[in-house]
Amino acid sequence: MDLNQELSKRVDIFNKELEKYLKNGAPKLLYDAARHLPLAGGKRLRPCISMLSCEAVSGNAEQMMPLATSVELLHNFTLVHDDIMDKSKLRRNLPAVHIKFGEPTAIMAGDLLFAKSFDVMHDLSVESSIFKILDQNLVKCVEEICEGQQLDIEFEQRKIIAEREYLEMIRKKTAVLFMLSAKGAAIACGGTKEEINAFKEYGTSLGLAFQIWDDYLDISSDEKTLGKDIGNDIRNGKKTLIAVHALNNAVGSDKKNLEKIFGNRHATEQEVKQVYDIFEKTKSVEYAKQTALSYCAKAKKALDVLKDSDAKAVLLELADYSIKRKK
Amino acid sequence: MDLNQELSKRVDIFNKELEKYLKNGAPKLLYDAARHLPLAGGKRLRPCISMLSCEAVSGNAEQMMPLATSVELLHNFTLVHDDIMDKSKLRRNLPAVHIKFGEPTAIMAGDLLFAKSFDVMHDLSVESSIFKILDQNLVKCVEEICEGQQLDIEFEQRKIIAEREYLEMIRKKTAVLFMLSAKGAAIACGGTKEEINAFKEYGTSLGLAFQIWDDYLDISSDEKTLGKDIGNDIRNGKKTLIAVHALNNAVGSDKKNLEKIFGNRHATEQEVKQVYDIFEKTKSVEYAKQTALSYCAKAKKALDVLKDSDAKAVLLELADYSIKRKK
Repeated sequence: MDLNQELSKRVDIFNKELEKYLKNGAPKLLYDAARHLPLAGGKRLRPCISMLSCEAVSGNAEQMMPLATSVELLHNFTLVHDDIMDKSKLRRNLPAVHIKFGEPTAIMAGDLLFAKSFDVMHDLSVESSIFKILDQNLVKCVEEICEGQQLDIEFEQRKIIAEREYLEMIRKKTAVLFMLSAKGAAIACGGTKEEINAFKEYGTSLGLAFQIWDDYLDISSDEKTLGKDIGNDIRNGKKTLIAVHALNNAVGSDKKNLEKIFGNRHATEQEVKQVYDIFEKTKSVEYAKQTALSYCAKAKKALDVLKDSDAKAVLLELADYSIKRKK
Repeated sequence: MDLNQELSKRVDIFNKELEKYLKNGAPKLLYDAARHLPLAGGKRLRPCISMLSCEAVSGNAEQMMPLATSVELLHNFTLVHDDIMDKSKLRRNLPAVHIKFGEPTAIMAGDLLFAKSFDVMHDLSVESSIFKILDQNLVKCVEEICEGQQLDIEFEQRKIIAEREYLEMIRKKTAVLFMLSAKGAAIACGGTKEEINAFKEYGTSLGLAFQIWDDYLDISSDEKTLGKDIGNDIRNGKKTLIAVHALNNAVGSDKKNLEKIFGNRHATEQEVKQVYDIFEKTKSVEYAKQTALSYCAKAKKALDVLKDSDAKAVLLELADYSIKRKK
């Protein structure tokens, strides 16, 4: 199976649907700002997961497009506000919304995308009782994303984070929306309780695998040169699973050096290299890799209860992709 | 009837309910930031309108507390984000959320309040089909508030605004939430179509009356001294109904002077006085007052279709208060 082709097929369908829901409106500047990021592309992983989950349960993804749109709009709402908080200048190779439209309009564009993500759900053809359950799942998801983003901010200021705390943070910040994309589709398609739980587990584990693999890629992709990004992450004290593991497992002078250098904005190149060596010594890079692999396996295992289908095969392949991709 | 006493009674009940819904959570800082403004008090006009509208329809407001909480949380969410956009430092005599907790946490606290305002609705004891209708009304309300706030920002940059445009801006920015508070309660309490429409009209007109009376108070409260606030509003080019009316009705040299001075941050006291005199000459202050009175009358007229009740009497009194208050 060609995963790329399977996803592209669905992305094309999704993009047409998204255009329909993100029509121009007035005031134009607000709608331009709200459309800027969602219409700039992106991998559309979350809507693809919704479409595939629905196909795996009921065979038909068309009825699920409002949910697929909702999760993608939610994702974009969080990106718009995150970029303001993190003072990021670029996103998807374009100026971030607050750079292009100014911060006030960007805050409001995020709020509007948030509202739209709930609005589109009203086009879903489901019983009102199912609508209500989905609405509650969406709401809880946003609450957890806010909590996760706040934890992420707070962790930057703290020296030591327990691995459990780190996993809880990325579960909330990243994995819950993957979870909602899969579980929400199963609920909306009339899946059994067993199927709904399977998709909840699949989405959560897949989201964790994706995030931890990102952590791993950030530091391993550029091993030999210890490029600028790695140096920056170390100087900024970015709490990845690798850093968290090393901070908890380094001993003696390594521990002292790590605590001294990690998060020091003025660390020299020599010191950055030293931290990287400690990461290797504590086997933290390998540990992160293995953790991602194990979440990938968990995601795949969760789908055991489903009957075989093309969609299920794509979902399994997608899990493998999460820990095979090079970027 | 003592309006103050009638409102206080309901505010006390409401505040207890709000505490229950805004419990502490983790991360603590995020929840502290989200609780900061809603628990700092405020007039609670919107929840009172919901409670009273429900009483006027079905006699029982207790079942309506989740809706009353929802509209108040929505209101507070918009205040938190507005204060960031407007760079306001104070709110309810306390530091604004972004001043006390920093901008990133304030953006997120606003997002969390937004989510909570939808979350609490799940505690409302209504049929799923009614829940769905209320959810859609809430969503549309937020979309219009975003549009209204964006219009407000854009109007500051424009020389001339038509009165129609100004009214549309304050309808979206302010009146829709009054409208939702009243209409939503009627829907949730099983009101007839006629009652629902009456409350829609009441809430909208009341909201417009409140906002325009604010415009009027801002400039008339301090007539003799032309205090600092009036000077600032003129120097900042704040588009109130008074300014909009004057800009559209001044002629000859008055028109030229108005366009030159209004919005000029370096205008002298002499020039500010000149603008104020033009406001008087075009009868714009009186015009704003009469417009507020006429919306107040419209709000009261809308309630004609309701059977008489104590709650209806309070709602009528509340409409009068909107154009009698001195602050």
